[in-house]
Amino acid sequence: MVFKLTRKSTPVALLILALSLLCTGTAFAQEATAQSNAVAIDTVWTLIAAFLVFFMQAGFAMVETGFTRAKNAANIMMKNLMDFSVGSIGFWAIGFGIMFGTSVLGLFGKTGFFLSTGDPSTGAGLWQFAYWIFQCVFAATAATIVSGAMAERTKFVSYLIYSVCISAFIYPIVGHWIWGGGWLSAKGMIDFAGSTVVHSVGGWAALAGAILLGPRLGKYNKDGSSNAICGHNIPLAALGVFILWFGWFGFNPGSTTAGTNLSIAVIAVTTNLAAAAGSITAMFTAWKRFGKPDTSMALNGALAGLVAITAGCANVSPISAILIGAIAGILVVVSVEFIDKVLHIDDPVGAISVHGVCGAFGTLAVGIFAQKAYGGADGLLFGGGFKLLFIQALGVASVFVWVFAAALVVFSVVKATVGLRVIAEEELKGLDIGEHGMESYSGFQIFTTQ
Amino acid sequence: MVFKLTRKSTPVALLILALSLLCTGTAFAQEATAQSNAVAIDTVWTLIAAFLVFFMQAGFAMVETGFTRAKNAANIMMKNLMDFSVGSIGFWAIGFGIMFGTSVLGLFGKTGFFLSTGDPSTGAGLWQFAYWIFQCVFAATAATIVSGAMAERTKFVSYLIYSVCISAFIYPIVGHWIWGGGWLSAKGMIDFAGSTVVHSVGGWAALAGAILLGPRLGKYNKDGSSNAICGHNIPLAALGVFILWFGWFGFNPGSTTAGTNLSIAVIAVTTNLAAAAGSITAMFTAWKRFGKPDTSMALNGALAGLVAITAGCANVSPISAILIGAIAGILVVVSVEFIDKVLHIDDPVGAISVHGVCGAFGTLAVGIFAQKAYGGADGLLFGGGFKLLFIQALGVASVFVWVFAAALVVFSVVKATVGLRVIAEEELKGLDIGEHGMESYSGFQIFTTQ
Amino acid sequence: MVFKLTRKSTPVALLILALSLLCTGTAFAQEATAQSNAVAIDTVWTLIAAFLVFFMQAGFAMVETGFTRAKNAANIMMKNLMDFSVGSIGFWAIGFGIMFGTSVLGLFGKTGFFLSTGDPSTGAGLWQFAYWIFQCVFAATAATIVSGAMAERTKFVSYLIYSVCISAFIYPIVGHWIWGGGWLSAKGMIDFAGSTVVHSVGGWAALAGAILLGPRLGKYNKDGSSNAICGHNIPLAALGVFILWFGWFGFNPGSTTAGTNLSIAVIAVTTNLAAAAGSITAMFTAWKRFGKPDTSMALNGALAGLVAITAGCANVSPISAILIGAIAGILVVVSVEFIDKVLHIDDPVGAISVHGVCGAFGTLAVGIFAQKAYGGADGLLFGGGFKLLFIQALGVASVFVWVFAAALVVFSVVKATVGLRVIAEEELKGLDIGEHGMESYSGFQIFTTQ
Repeated sequence: MVFKLTRKSTPVALLILALSLLCTGTAFAQEATAQSNAVAIDTVWTLIAAFLVFFMQAGFAMVETGFTRAKNAANIMMKNLMDFSVGSIGFWAIGFGIMFGTSVLGLFGKTGFFLSTGDPSTGAGLWQFAYWIFQCVFAATAATIVSGAMAERTKFVSYLIYSVCISAFIYPIVGHWIWGGGWLSAKGMIDFAGSTVVHSVGGWAALAGAILLGPRLGKYNKDGSSNAICGHNIPLAALGVFILWFGWFGFNPGSTTAGTNLSIAVIAVTTNLAAAAGSITAMFTAWKRFGKPDTSMALNGALAGLVAITAGCANVSPISAILIGAIAGILVVVSVEFIDKVLHIDDPVGAISVHGVCGAFGTLAVGIFAQKAYGGADGLLFGGGFKLLFIQALGVASVFVWVFAAALVVFSVVKATVGLRVIAEEELKGLDIGEHGMESYSGFQIFTTQ
Repeated sequence: MVFKLTRKSTPVALLILALSLLCTGTAFAQEATAQSNAVAIDTVWTLIAAFLVFFMQAGFAMVETGFTRAKNAANIMMKNLMDFSVGSIGFWAIGFGIMFGTSVLGLFGKTGFFLSTGDPSTGAGLWQFAYWIFQCVFAATAATIVSGAMAERTKFVSYLIYSVCISAFIYPIVGHWIWGGGWLSAKGMIDFAGSTVVHSVGGWAALAGAILLGPRLGKYNKDGSSNAICGHNIPLAALGVFILWFGWFGFNPGSTTAGTNLSIAVIAVTTNLAAAAGSITAMFTAWKRFGKPDTSMALNGALAGLVAITAGCANVSPISAILIGAIAGILVVVSVEFIDKVLHIDDPVGAISVHGVCGAFGTLAVGIFAQKAYGGADGLLFGGGFKLLFIQALGVASVFVWVFAAALVVFSVVKATVGLRVIAEEELKGLDIGEHGMESYSGFQIFTTQ
Repeated sequence: MVFKLTRKSTPVALLILALSLLCTGTAFAQEATAQSNAVAIDTVWTLIAAFLVFFMQAGFAMVETGFTRAKNAANIMMKNLMDFSVGSIGFWAIGFGIMFGTSVLGLFGKTGFFLSTGDPSTGAGLWQFAYWIFQCVFAATAATIVSGAMAERTKFVSYLIYSVCISAFIYPIVGHWIWGGGWLSAKGMIDFAGSTVVHSVGGWAALAGAILLGPRLGKYNKDGSSNAICGHNIPLAALGVFILWFGWFGFNPGSTTAGTNLSIAVIAVTTNLAAAAGSITAMFTAWKRFGKPDTSMALNGALAGLVAITAGCANVSPISAILIGAIAGILVVVSVEFIDKVLHIDDPVGAISVHGVCGAFGTLAVGIFAQKAYGGADGLLFGGGFKLLFIQALGVASVFVWVFAAALVVFSVVKATVGLRVIAEEELKGLDIGEHGMESYSGFQIFTTQ
């Protein structure tokens, strides 16, 4: 609050400029110019987008708890709160420097730790604060994706350790490669808002975690068949998907980090159409395979469309966005079934399929559907040949190798030391009691087997 | 993410302009001017408003499920997800063209299908993308209103068919009349943000649907008396109302589609005051009629105030806004009772009263309370005579006739072909199991009669 | 909706300017200038921030209901809806004038009631609307804080009366002292976004209310020991905290009321880091004291960090923000235990500790951690000596005395007239039935003792 602003605040902008000088001691008192306004528009846009992306944490929390059992809900809330909290501190201390610091051989950055580039007395230094908060909420998104795949059986303390590792090291290195001036960026890879940088990083780490953890008790029978373990709160899961979709309007259009870049309008349109198409095709795919239109699959279809369009949202036409979303919606249903019934990897919320598989698909799709008229380069279907597709594939593969390997190492070390999984008795009773000494739904009658 | 942005991003705006050229291939490299900044401000404002209106989908979903029974919650989530998804695609392919295309006799547009007016290489073409996403989320709002009135007994496949029809045809035609340069717009009708265009369209289609469907099993007794069927989750319903109120700040102020139009501030104030007044008068009305201040009625009162102020939010004073909201808050309680107890039409969430009745009232109220000093023309109380009121009434009546008739036709055709209503056994067991093969609250003990 | 905007809207900004003239009758038709754009940026920023702060109402409602019992959920929703509604009207009629009107001896304002300073025909008059909505949502925040501490036993009608008093009188007087040009502002007190003005006002009123009400039945045993009364919905409480964190990005950065003031970026960073630090230290403190990391305490820790950084968010470095948040996270756990187990004051959600204690701490912390380089003045650790700290302490103490005394008077008068507390039978059965004649979770099996 500008603490000396009285109600006679006329003329507004001049007074505010004067007051900001008074209140903050910094030199904003110069008159507004087209240039200073453009910087303000970009800063406002980037911050609001960051706030929307932050809110996705609530979406992830609701989706994850909605699709799992009531006895683990407080544990899931705690994981989602904490991956953002320790992620924020870790990204402040280390991650941002690795991601955007002066590059060492295109592999990682080595400067800018502890937000040392932020400076409240210069325009460039102020921009670093805006840029940092935007990047911070992205880092936390990568971290939180893993939570879902490892739900209902992971030790809380292990999850804390892992969260620091992904936010401070695993994710920022990929970010440096593709967004921080690293080797993949030098090759021309396009991942506008992070199908690979954010989502498949989360998805492949989730894959490593789910493999090392093993399935939940009762998930697979001796004959290898799989049991469905139903989520306990579908309205909360749906609310989570709506929140994520809402937040994605910060994630994708916000990734211009410039409100003066009018392609934000195109990006909002492609993002929305891909999500819509993904939920529709996932619904019909599930309808055909299971006989009824499963709500969970349609919800995951919307997320699949969103993840897939994230790489190319600024580079493809609306109709291509619909195609990308539609394919992702089919892919996610097939992938969830394949991972569950063939690979026998237990991923309670489908995070590996939604974020890993559809993130990889979306990144490759840029190589196929990109149009220079929208931005970047032409893909396979628009006269660009295989060049871009090859670079995209190289990026997808490299990120998979790095993340999967690094996550395997982290989780293996955790497993060998503090342990990765709670004991069977605690898992049956629920992690809310076991890890946190509390119940999520005090007063409600809940079946003990659930 | 601007993929070559390094942390040394100084000077910010210039670099971003250069990068946007690099990344998107489009010509944004010219220096910022007052004119280009004004366009950016308008685009940013319109997009953020569109995101807020999108989020209202979550609000509608929560209100509808909160006020109905647990056994139908997954079905309601699916309907709300799908009316937005198929609505988005339908509005992209057809609706937008009918609403804003070159007019045929002031009745409907005939160009601009498949967003053919969007062009990433020109400023005007880029604006079309921003304008489209803003209009798309409005179309989906009209569609989703109907869901509540038809809750707990409608076949899912029928709902899908209806959703396409309203988003692609019924709504855009009204939109063309009033916002797209059609005949009511030529007469000077004022419906700034859509009390009629959006809300009463939804409300009258809901009326047609609820009549053709008939009441839920057990709703009315043989003697004609009505049974209350309680909602299963009041906190979710309240959350939904808060989300809707929040989203309405995009709906009404955003309808300037211009952040440089400072009347956005007035609109935010009138919107908020009408909502506050509506919830207060609805509370007292319910208190007087039922002996206690019913939470559901107060929540619906807030929505009634919001719906009613939507038409005149840019054209009336704050005190008029309070009066409009206050009247709507009383009206909604009376209307809910009348529709239930006298007309015997079963509307589980009060959608016909909130959106149809209060939408019509709010549109008429513009003819009474409008002041040229705020915008548009003077209404009855401010020296404008009956002229504006007459035009408003003509608009309300015309839209009622068109929407009610068109919706009756659509629902009748659906009823005669795929059928409109689930069988009694399924209705008793719940649509979650019957339509989607799942439960919403797995693990919770729920009374079978509910 | 600009109701004559056709799809051929080129060139956009010019057309919109022309249309806004057409639609609103006000004179916006002048060409865009750097100055008019700066005003637009500030207005857009202030409004969006206000919308985010409004949304915090949903967060407060979810936190309060999540941490209390199922039988009182509809009552809590009603209180949260109504304190905002009557607060809005009260702040419009009276509060805003007291807070920002022409000062009487630096104690309270005496002009500007009923938003009489708003004028749609001038730039300064339009700004008053934007400023009012921003201030209105702050007033409502102060009001709603009290609800949590008085949950599960307060008569609804008494809560209504109190809500008007705090929004229209108690809060605006403090606001006048510190933000409206009053005596504390003249002394140089820094409370940028309201650790004291908003949060500790709510917290101290909550303290008075909780003392006068007495503890819930069954809270304390005859030997003075305290029983835990578990919350009924931890996922909703967590959702509430995420919503509050999200809304705080409007609360703190928005308090510049200027998007052209680039310190908004710094404020977003300090706000986020303090919240993260608070949740981490609260978790570890609870872990150490109770043996397990309690989810509720970690959630309250995030809020504690947010409340504490609110005063100094524009005046301290990121690392100071982390320290402030970290201390608040420890403090809130200690304070909750002290108030419960030593003082035997029953505060169901910890509102007194989170908002009162951490609000006071955060205000004092400005006197320690403030740096002129960020804004304002230097605190104790940065060469400013005890001067600022003394002023901050004076402010904290003065506000405590005024608010605690005024709230005691209000609640005592209410207690002596309409009564403050429901009868024991109603409290046991739940306020949903007793006050509102309804259930919150119809159909769910809920333990009667809860």
